[in-house]
Amino acid sequence: MLRTHTCGELNIQSAGQEVILTGWVQRIRDKGGLVWIDLRDRYGITQLMMEEGTSDPAVIETAKELGREFVIQTKGLVIERVSKNLKIPTGEIEIKVSEIKVLNKSKLPPFTIEDNTDGGEELRMKYRYLDLRRTPVRRNLELRHRMAIETRIYLDKQKFIEIETPVLIKSTPEGARDFVVPSRMNPGEFYALPQSPQTFKQLLMVAGYDRYYQIVKCFRDEDLRADRQPEFTQIDCEMAFVEQNDILNTFEGLTKYLFSRIKEVDFADPFPRMSYADAMKQYGSDKPDIRFGMKFEELDDLGKGRDFKVFDDAGLVVGICVPGCADYTRKQLDELTEFVKKPQLGAKGLVYIRFNLDGTIKSSVDKFFNETELKSWAERFNAQPGDLILVLAGDINLTRKALNELRLEMGGRLGLRKPDTYAPLWVVDFPLLEWDQDTARFYAMHHPFTSPKPEDIHLLAGSPGEVRANAYDLVINGVEIGGGSIRIHDKELQKNMFSILGFTDEQAQAQFGFLMNAFEFGAPPHGGLAFGFDRFCALFGGSDSIRDYIAFPKNNSGRDVMIDSPAIISDEQLKELNLKVTFEPAKK
Amino acid sequence: MLRTHTCGELNIQSAGQEVILTGWVQRIRDKGGLVWIDLRDRYGITQLMMEEGTSDPAVIETAKELGREFVIQTKGLVIERVSKNLKIPTGEIEIKVSEIKVLNKSKLPPFTIEDNTDGGEELRMKYRYLDLRRTPVRRNLELRHRMAIETRIYLDKQKFIEIETPVLIKSTPEGARDFVVPSRMNPGEFYALPQSPQTFKQLLMVAGYDRYYQIVKCFRDEDLRADRQPEFTQIDCEMAFVEQNDILNTFEGLTKYLFSRIKEVDFADPFPRMSYADAMKQYGSDKPDIRFGMKFEELDDLGKGRDFKVFDDAGLVVGICVPGCADYTRKQLDELTEFVKKPQLGAKGLVYIRFNLDGTIKSSVDKFFNETELKSWAERFNAQPGDLILVLAGDINLTRKALNELRLEMGGRLGLRKPDTYAPLWVVDFPLLEWDQDTARFYAMHHPFTSPKPEDIHLLAGSPGEVRANAYDLVINGVEIGGGSIRIHDKELQKNMFSILGFTDEQAQAQFGFLMNAFEFGAPPHGGLAFGFDRFCALFGGSDSIRDYIAFPKNNSGRDVMIDSPAIISDEQLKELNLKVTFEPAKK
Repeated sequence: MLRTHTCGELNIQSAGQEVILTGWVQRIRDKGGLVWIDLRDRYGITQLMMEEGTSDPAVIETAKELGREFVIQTKGLVIERVSKNLKIPTGEIEIKVSEIKVLNKSKLPPFTIEDNTDGGEELRMKYRYLDLRRTPVRRNLELRHRMAIETRIYLDKQKFIEIETPVLIKSTPEGARDFVVPSRMNPGEFYALPQSPQTFKQLLMVAGYDRYYQIVKCFRDEDLRADRQPEFTQIDCEMAFVEQNDILNTFEGLTKYLFSRIKEVDFADPFPRMSYADAMKQYGSDKPDIRFGMKFEELDDLGKGRDFKVFDDAGLVVGICVPGCADYTRKQLDELTEFVKKPQLGAKGLVYIRFNLDGTIKSSVDKFFNETELKSWAERFNAQPGDLILVLAGDINLTRKALNELRLEMGGRLGLRKPDTYAPLWVVDFPLLEWDQDTARFYAMHHPFTSPKPEDIHLLAGSPGEVRANAYDLVINGVEIGGGSIRIHDKELQKNMFSILGFTDEQAQAQFGFLMNAFEFGAPPHGGLAFGFDRFCALFGGSDSIRDYIAFPKNNSGRDVMIDSPAIISDEQLKELNLKVTFEPAKK
Repeated sequence: MLRTHTCGELNIQSAGQEVILTGWVQRIRDKGGLVWIDLRDRYGITQLMMEEGTSDPAVIETAKELGREFVIQTKGLVIERVSKNLKIPTGEIEIKVSEIKVLNKSKLPPFTIEDNTDGGEELRMKYRYLDLRRTPVRRNLELRHRMAIETRIYLDKQKFIEIETPVLIKSTPEGARDFVVPSRMNPGEFYALPQSPQTFKQLLMVAGYDRYYQIVKCFRDEDLRADRQPEFTQIDCEMAFVEQNDILNTFEGLTKYLFSRIKEVDFADPFPRMSYADAMKQYGSDKPDIRFGMKFEELDDLGKGRDFKVFDDAGLVVGICVPGCADYTRKQLDELTEFVKKPQLGAKGLVYIRFNLDGTIKSSVDKFFNETELKSWAERFNAQPGDLILVLAGDINLTRKALNELRLEMGGRLGLRKPDTYAPLWVVDFPLLEWDQDTARFYAMHHPFTSPKPEDIHLLAGSPGEVRANAYDLVINGVEIGGGSIRIHDKELQKNMFSILGFTDEQAQAQFGFLMNAFEFGAPPHGGLAFGFDRFCALFGGSDSIRDYIAFPKNNSGRDVMIDSPAIISDEQLKELNLKVTFEPAKK
């Protein structure tokens, strides 16, 4: 090894030792007779010092010629510092340097390698290898490693076995777009990259593996939003001979273990469980943030029939009670109105009722409702003097969606979404299908392999939209961390599902015949769950962006700006693959 | 859970317990008044029994209607068996069944789910989910899981962190063919799937991560041999601030740990190390099987100049001494001659010298060499009476290659390649470059990022073929398990390497500019190693075929015959990707 110690491990007990360190020059301070260098590596920072008169002049000379991010190897004596820095583990000592060797020089980095850098996103991505040197980024990747290995250790103890499923599979038209891979050896044919190992893990259940997991890359060729990546990682799990409850308990166990080991947060109680229907009704979202209350109250009975057309024509009148905000100014209320009216939310307007501290009530709908009526609203919310009630009305789904956003906004403004508080929640009983207006057909809400609740199967023929599924999501602080379902393991039911989803028998057989055939050879009852690993890491790390937890992320156009990929390939490659590019780039 | 216990955990201590088991019907025996069922799951087999008179007749009826591979749930009492089977952990007990529920039926499987199945390769691959039920296949995947998690635990303790590198990267023309992935969002451009995370792990070293690993899928679009897969798995590792010795020691540590934990084989001594030059000279191979001796001895000085034209014209006269085979018959010797003359080996013939037990010497070249001369040959090999000396002559490389195969053949015949003996070996000091006659250029023997030995750098300009690299392989029992090198970390040297490899500056910059640029910002000395994980598992499992250790392997045409992939994709998909397939399938 080129070093005897790392830059993070020497302390006052090491004083008197001669050591060799390697690392990057973080900072040089030259105070006339004294030169200090902060030497950095993955493990920390150690201060080097040289002193005119007692240090070798050649060494001081070398030190003065160093630049930021030079890589050096240095030898010296660990001594106690005069002026200690108790904020860092190595802060009580420094190295009295006797030798310095430059292992590699560095040009001046395009941005500062500091916790708060002066580099913008684009620049940091282009020089990601420098961005990765910054402590906050390194901590994110270390957290990710920790979460992965702890997950594996836990699941291994629970007798799960990690099995690698193939990356080169077959394209299926259901769901998101696949990335495809042309096969040279099978001309005109393509592999696809998996959106998830779904069918393979089900086959592993048919094969009797009974507890499978895999931390695995998945791929989706979607138009990217800020928080999506074309390749992402799942903790993918499946179990046989289980019911829904067993799966929830097992992965609640994993989640608690990770919280305890990594965040030192212990949950004494079971995670609460809420039906999809209740989540939509009470929070307007299938991933409610339950770190705070402000639950929805429906006001149809109180609001309608008072000649207020906005309410009378609405599919739903619904509101929240915001504690202590009765004193919101007109300007603040206008802001909130603009907030719900923005195109993404699309509410028509916002009704407010101030339940003033003096007990009086003042609303934006005083013309239509008298104080007694408004008091009954306040009672519905169990509002206290000083609270502000905000009400939306309109189409049921849109109104719930908008009020959900308003609730989150108000929770944020009031500091109720505390970063160090974690409120996990199982959302269960999702609908099996959702109707798509554009294509006039049902789509599987989870995926086509999800089983309907046995008690709802009779609805499949007549009212498929009402069938509930054995499907569940794990939601933490309003973020969907994982989701899964009990699967269909009966060939006929699976065929029926494909038919409801608009597949002909031939299409179903061509795409998923291998799975349905497998169901005929003793398929056990089974189900599973997948965690979005990038998001799980972001939640633990306290960030909204999964990109911060990926070593080499792509940008919103799916480009890696560091290696400049994707890129054109040679005509020879195209020819070998029997492909022609039909796109004509615009002349520059 | 649908069960209280697995089929592998009940024993005599469990007698008297009421239990619920689930699993697959392995076998039914109906002996008039008694019915036995072997119930199988991943954990073992438990015997169920029913008895006319004491068991519920309805249950017996159900049992008699079961078929092989039916999935059942059964309830019953654990009782001590009358006739015990001490070969299996559950062999002292059976379950007196009170209830049976069929969870799923099964058609008759196309082959028997037994250790020795009647199913051929093709059929087993098509129904891989049934093949995976067989105990030997399950044990292989369990071994693979065990090796992966133990590897991670070991490397984690050594402060390695696992970092995921991207799967969608950029195509590079050097080395094997890339699989490519058309980008819809970047029309006309392609990602490539990584042949290894080489450049990314080097960038992680530049980024200061100093100890990286990843168990990672890699991809190579090669014409497949029996033992290659288009997607395969590596244990990919890299370290900074190290010299070659540090890497060998670290991964020797990992290898010893795995042997100890998984195979209960402990190596007291360091693994031997041998230069590439010595390996070629003494074994004719860069991956010698050193479980046995039979080292090459060169005989140019003794064999040439005796008017034996075959020897006189040869680039090399070289032989091995096969212990105790002097009594080989003419027929056996003819067989060996045919063996070395087969086209893959291409030797012109085989010379033998029998050192008979009575001390006489008899050879196929008695015409050219007298007994004294042949005795000096025997002395060269330190041959004992009863030994057989086999000699080949011809072009150096071809002769070494053929003699290597002959040595392995003889080792096999004499039972010297013992499956339970493990002989690891580091082969070091590989040549940096190899000359390719066809394209008349040098290729990197390892890859273009491998550093030359400092003491050989002066040869780069004049005699590049003589330059040795800081490159090494881990060979166990003649199988290459891993390999790596100390990398170049200096931009100028890397540029020079690309130029020797025939890249123009522009090509080098376009393909690898990001890496060479990174070297300008403080790149530390670094190096690494990658294990072929599939092969490592096969070695531990005692198999020659990596396919046995992959859950869903592809066949020699790169096809997954179970899911029937690759396959054609829709015109719509092609259009979105701006692609046209130029291949016209032959009309059927």
